[in-house]
Formats: sequence, structure tokens, C-alpha cells
Amino acid sequence: MEDTILVVNCGSSTLKLAVFDGAFRVRASGLAERLHQGDAVAHLRHHDQPVKLPPDASHREALEAMIHALVDLDVIQGTPSAVGHRVVHGGETFHDAVLIDEAVIEAIEDCASLAPLHNPVNLSGIRATRALFPSVPHIAVFDTAFHQTLPRKAYLYALPYDYYRQWGVRRYGFHGTSHQFMLTESAQRLGKTPATTSIISAHLGNGCSIAAIRDGISVDTSMGLTPLEGLVMGSRSGDIDPGLFDFLKTKGIDQDQLHHVLNHKSGLLGLSGQTNDMRTLCELADHGHEPSLVAVEVFCYRLARYIGAMMASLDRLDGLVFTGGIGENSARVRKQTLDHLRLSGLCLNAELNQEHGQNSDGYINDADSRFPVLVVPTNEELVIARESQRIAASQE
Amino acid sequence: MEDTILVVNCGSSTLKLAVFDGAFRVRASGLAERLHQGDAVAHLRHHDQPVKLPPDASHREALEAMIHALVDLDVIQGTPSAVGHRVVHGGETFHDAVLIDEAVIEAIEDCASLAPLHNPVNLSGIRATRALFPSVPHIAVFDTAFHQTLPRKAYLYALPYDYYRQWGVRRYGFHGTSHQFMLTESAQRLGKTPATTSIISAHLGNGCSIAAIRDGISVDTSMGLTPLEGLVMGSRSGDIDPGLFDFLKTKGIDQDQLHHVLNHKSGLLGLSGQTNDMRTLCELADHGHEPSLVAVEVFCYRLARYIGAMMASLDRLDGLVFTGGIGENSARVRKQTLDHLRLSGLCLNAELNQEHGQNSDGYINDADSRFPVLVVPTNEELVIARESQRIAASQE
Repeated sequence: MEDTILVVNCGSSTLKLAVFDGAFRVRASGLAERLHQGDAVAHLRHHDQPVKLPPDASHREALEAMIHALVDLDVIQGTPSAVGHRVVHGGETFHDAVLIDEAVIEAIEDCASLAPLHNPVNLSGIRATRALFPSVPHIAVFDTAFHQTLPRKAYLYALPYDYYRQWGVRRYGFHGTSHQFMLTESAQRLGKTPATTSIISAHLGNGCSIAAIRDGISVDTSMGLTPLEGLVMGSRSGDIDPGLFDFLKTKGIDQDQLHHVLNHKSGLLGLSGQTNDMRTLCELADHGHEPSLVAVEVFCYRLARYIGAMMASLDRLDGLVFTGGIGENSARVRKQTLDHLRLSGLCLNAELNQEHGQNSDGYINDADSRFPVLVVPTNEELVIARESQRIAASQE
Repeated sequence: MEDTILVVNCGSSTLKLAVFDGAFRVRASGLAERLHQGDAVAHLRHHDQPVKLPPDASHREALEAMIHALVDLDVIQGTPSAVGHRVVHGGETFHDAVLIDEAVIEAIEDCASLAPLHNPVNLSGIRATRALFPSVPHIAVFDTAFHQTLPRKAYLYALPYDYYRQWGVRRYGFHGTSHQFMLTESAQRLGKTPATTSIISAHLGNGCSIAAIRDGISVDTSMGLTPLEGLVMGSRSGDIDPGLFDFLKTKGIDQDQLHHVLNHKSGLLGLSGQTNDMRTLCELADHGHEPSLVAVEVFCYRLARYIGAMMASLDRLDGLVFTGGIGENSARVRKQTLDHLRLSGLCLNAELNQEHGQNSDGYINDADSRFPVLVVPTNEELVIARESQRIAASQE
């Protein structure tokens, strides 16, 4: 029987599945959306086939329906050889992917107060899949684990130290699997080993974060205690003045309302008043829609500011790497961002920048740039599959 | 009668006065502390003379007592030729210092919701001094005015745009008089005009902020809507994850409590658990006190991150300038900060760094540094005096 690795990624109302063969090629993938919302839908992408779900389907129900469909299609023959689960928050407990047992499940529950929207659904995915495939190794791959190498000067906030000691208030960082993938992919392109490669990795999707990686080790990142800090995102504010809470209280906006606004009504969506979709915003901007132009401007400028900030963690820069939906597809964002960074020695080549993207990765810097600039497509599912295979193999 | 300019600076529980002669030399200065707190004290520094105050003295009472003492000592002969008032928040109304009239007072009142702890006491100082010297020009000099040139990409948060339009939620920036002073002083040392000088100015006192100044124009700064954002400060947190409010609520810390902690129990004080005084922290760190070492580390690293970030606003850097109590006096902070910035091309000279400080300003960079680094003592009272003289003269 051929090796297959199943990857399970539960979001707050979504479920993504991917099946890899032993050579880490995707055999199938599936997506369920609007779970728990009364209008759930699911389909298998590689076979372009809908999967029937009850309208109020839970993560468990969607998972079971999609896995049965994959078994029926013979994509999964019998059982997979390993199942990899994305888990958002591993706190300070998990520095690496780990084989799931009852103690691990308990520890993931313990981290739930740090990610109340994510860890519980991650756990429900783990429980449902373990029930379906009880004899198979299940591996948890954490968004935070890659950043556990941050030095204390980068992970401590300037808060009472007891907040850290008692409650774990610190910078954790997220998108770890993507940043780690950027490291290995960039090292390959640069003809280096990951352990001797230093990059700045900009993951720009609907969520956005940046990481400074020094000789293979994550040393700083823009997301913090939660995935709200840092760069401008689709509907998240990123950094604000902490005094905003107090000021808006005088305007009748309480903490709960503001929390909702910062997570769901801010970012590109808030500034433009239109959409969180960068492609649409760039089109609107080209047609003279001023708020969309402003949103793109602020997004790029804040990113440039962070690229400069990340340089404080590095003594060498082998490359600045763009990835994620926006990073891979928006030549305009890359250009507007790099336009701010000439003093720092980063210089784009306009033609290469236009040519490269999701389907054609590579170098996009000018010959006289002090540092290389690259576009590399990310693939978080692939990292989870590889990590799962590595951990499963290490148990044998 | 000789020209004298009186400078009035009202803090929340303090009052500073300075008297300058026509050549902008300090003739006298005074400080009242613990106002409204039941144990008010005041003295004139240049004459080392206490001024008697009622224990529960208000700003008005302290002002009157100190000015009478200055008149008795003949430091102020009759009336000053102009009075300059520091005003913290000028909102988007004030781009420059301005002659105070009733309309200006009303506009400062309108900005009070942006600085509820500061603008009202600034106004009480203005009213009391105007009553004493009704026939003299009074000038308001704003902490925010110098930063009104920020481009929108730097002053807009990624929040719903209506927050800006309706309520003025944006980055304002503070310490404007000090950053402006750094510009003119650095230009002089660099043999340039302010209008062709581009610097990064780091004002490190009990409050800390950094500004990027491009050809004489402030283009970015670390403080925001309020003076809480940005760098690590004596007892203020600077930047945090906005998700902190929600997380700490689950631990029983409400918004008001956290606001107090962020302003008064965080920063160097919070991390070290000891003091907000950098000199004491460095001594403690030298004696092996780990929390103090951590506090200094985080302070310097966060500053280095911001210096890198500010480079995104500049196409040329004529100098990085340190000022303020810490910036002028702590060779250690300057060194630890610059140690992070070699990749950005900033390199200290260890000997020059030790030699220079408050009483001996000048260049402290190595010969092979890509950019000059300077120490320049700040003097906010002097800027207020100069600005007041300029505005008063323009009315004649």
C-alpha cells in the first residue's frame, strides 16, 4: 500500500484537507466553508466534486463526509500512513511538531486561552480524525513552534514581568510553518543550507506577518501574543496605539466592540471601506478610488517599516522573500514596498518583478541591490505533511 | 528694559518656568512639583531658592508664587516681552506655534479629548499667566505641531476610515519641539541648512520617541494618537499587541486597570520591577541583577528596531541623533542599540561614545560607519522661547 499523508487544517468556520503521496505530491485536497453557520458547503478541489453536508455541519461532520469521499475515490486507500494537524497555538510548551497523545491534547487545551478561537476547533479536528483512524500516528504541527527560538529581547513586551511569568504574556508569533518553508526554499535557491541562511520572510495573505531568520533560527517576528499585532492585514488592524482603547471609550465604543472592529473591520477593509481583497483594491485604485489607494499605500509603507525593523536582528541578509497570496501575486505591492527601502539597500528590478509570481518564482532584485529579493510560493500543507512524516518516522 | 521671555510648561502635577534674556540665555528657572497632591513644593533652580506654597497648591497658585519671586529677584523686570506656553496636543488644527487669543484657547479646549491629562492643565497655566501679564503676547507652542507634515501613509492607522474622519484618530506624534531642535542643531554641526538635512532623531527621556526628518520635514515618528505608543519608556509600555486587552480580561484585568498599568507600571519599571531610572538600572545590571539587564536589553533592542523602521521614510541619512536624559548620558544604551544596527550601516566608535554626552556633544560614529551618529543635548524650553520670540516679532 502506498504511503499517504493526510493534512487537516481547521479554521474557525473552515476545514482544509490535503492528501500527499510518499513523494509529497498532492493527490487531492478539499475545502469546507461556513461550518456552524447554517449554509455549510464542501468540495474536493482536485476532483472538482461537491461533498454533501448538512447545512449546519460541524467540523467533525464535514471532516467525516470529506474523508469518506476521499476513501470512496480511492485517494485514501484504507488508512493514511500519518495524519498531520495544524494547531495554531503551542505556547511555550511546543518547540517542534509532536506525536499526539492524551498528554499532548491536554497541553493544547492548556494553550487555548492564548488562542480561544483556534485551539478548540483544532482539537475537535484532531479528535474526529483520531476516531476515524485510531491506529495511525497523528502529529500536531504548531504555527508558533518555529518562533520559539526568539531571544527574550524580542519576545518580551515592556509590561510588568509578572504578566509573562504568571500568564505567558509574550510575543509568540504565527505563520511559523510558512516562514520555515521560506527558509528551506530560499536556502535551496541560494545554494546554501538552511542553518547558514539569514532571510527576512514576508508572508502576505489575508493574515500577514514578517519574520527575521538568522542562520536558520527565527529571531524576530511581527505577530505577537495573538495574530492581531504587526502588519496591516485584510481585516485586521495590526499595530495601533494602545491608548486607542481609552480614547474610543470616550466616544462610546467599548472594549468588546473595539476588539471586534480591530479583528474584522480594520486593515485593508477598514481603510478602503470596500474589500479586504488586494487585487480588487489595486483595480479600484487604478480607477481613481482614493480610499483604496490609501489602503494600499498604508499597507506597503507599514510593511517597509517592518522590513527595516527586522534588519536590527540580522548581521547578514541573504535575501528578502515575499510569499502568500499578496506576496506572490501583487507586483504592485512589492514595488511600492521596495520603493521605501532604497536607503536600506533593497532595490527591485521592474521587469523581473512583473515576470515573477505564484507560477514563476525567483529573484526580482536589481543587479545593484545590496541584498537579493525573491518571490517564493508558500505551501503550508506541504510543510505539515513533511513534518508529520519526519515525526512519524522518528517514532519507528 | 531688556527683552525677557518667560516659558511656562505645566505637566499633570508639575510646573516648570524658565526665563530667557534677549540672546536666549537662561536667566532663571524654577520647578514646582506634587501640585494638587497635598505636599506641593517649589524652588528656583538658578538661585537655589525655595518658594513658599500652600501644601495643596494648584498650578495657578504655584505659578503666581514663582512669578512673584522672579519679579522680586529682578529676574523679570516689570513684564516679560513675551510668554511661551508648552501645549501638548494641537490636533490637526495647529501646524505651528501661534499667538494666543480667545479662539486659540477654544481650539486647545477642543483638542482636550485627545490629551485629557495635559491640555486642561496647559490651559490653566495659560489663563493664570495671561491674568498676570495681560498686555504681553502669549504664544502656544505645541508638542504635535512639528509632526503635522507626516504623510498620510505614516499617520493613518489601519482602522475604519471613519474613526479618522469623525474623531481624528491618527498618529500625531509628540516631543515635536525637541525633534525640531535636533534638526536645527544637527544641521549646524553638519554644516547644512535645516531644509536640506535628513536625520533620525531619538529623544530618550522618561518619555521616549523617535522621528524621521526628511529635508527638514517630519515624515514619521513612533508616538501616535497618544504618547503611549512606540518605544519602551520609563514606566510606559510603548507598543503592545492590541489583543492584550482581550487576553487580560480573561485574567480579571479590566480596561481601566490595564490603561493604568500601561502608563505607570510598565516600561523599564515593569520589566525590572525596580525603577524607571536608566542609570540605576545599568548599575543594577552590572551587579548581576537579571531583571534590570533584561529591561535594558529590551529598551535598546526596541529602539534599534525603530531606527531601522524609520529608514523606510528616508532616501538619505545625514545623521542619527541621540538626545534626552538617556540619549545624552547613557553611553551603554547607545552602544547596545547600535550593536544591532551594523547591517543597516551604523557603527559606533567606542572611545568617542564614552567621551561624548550631555556636556560634550558631537560625533560618536566610527570612520567606516555608512552614516554619522551624534549626541546633541536637547533644550525644549529654548525652542519654546525662540518660537515665542519669532511669533511675537511677526505680529509687530
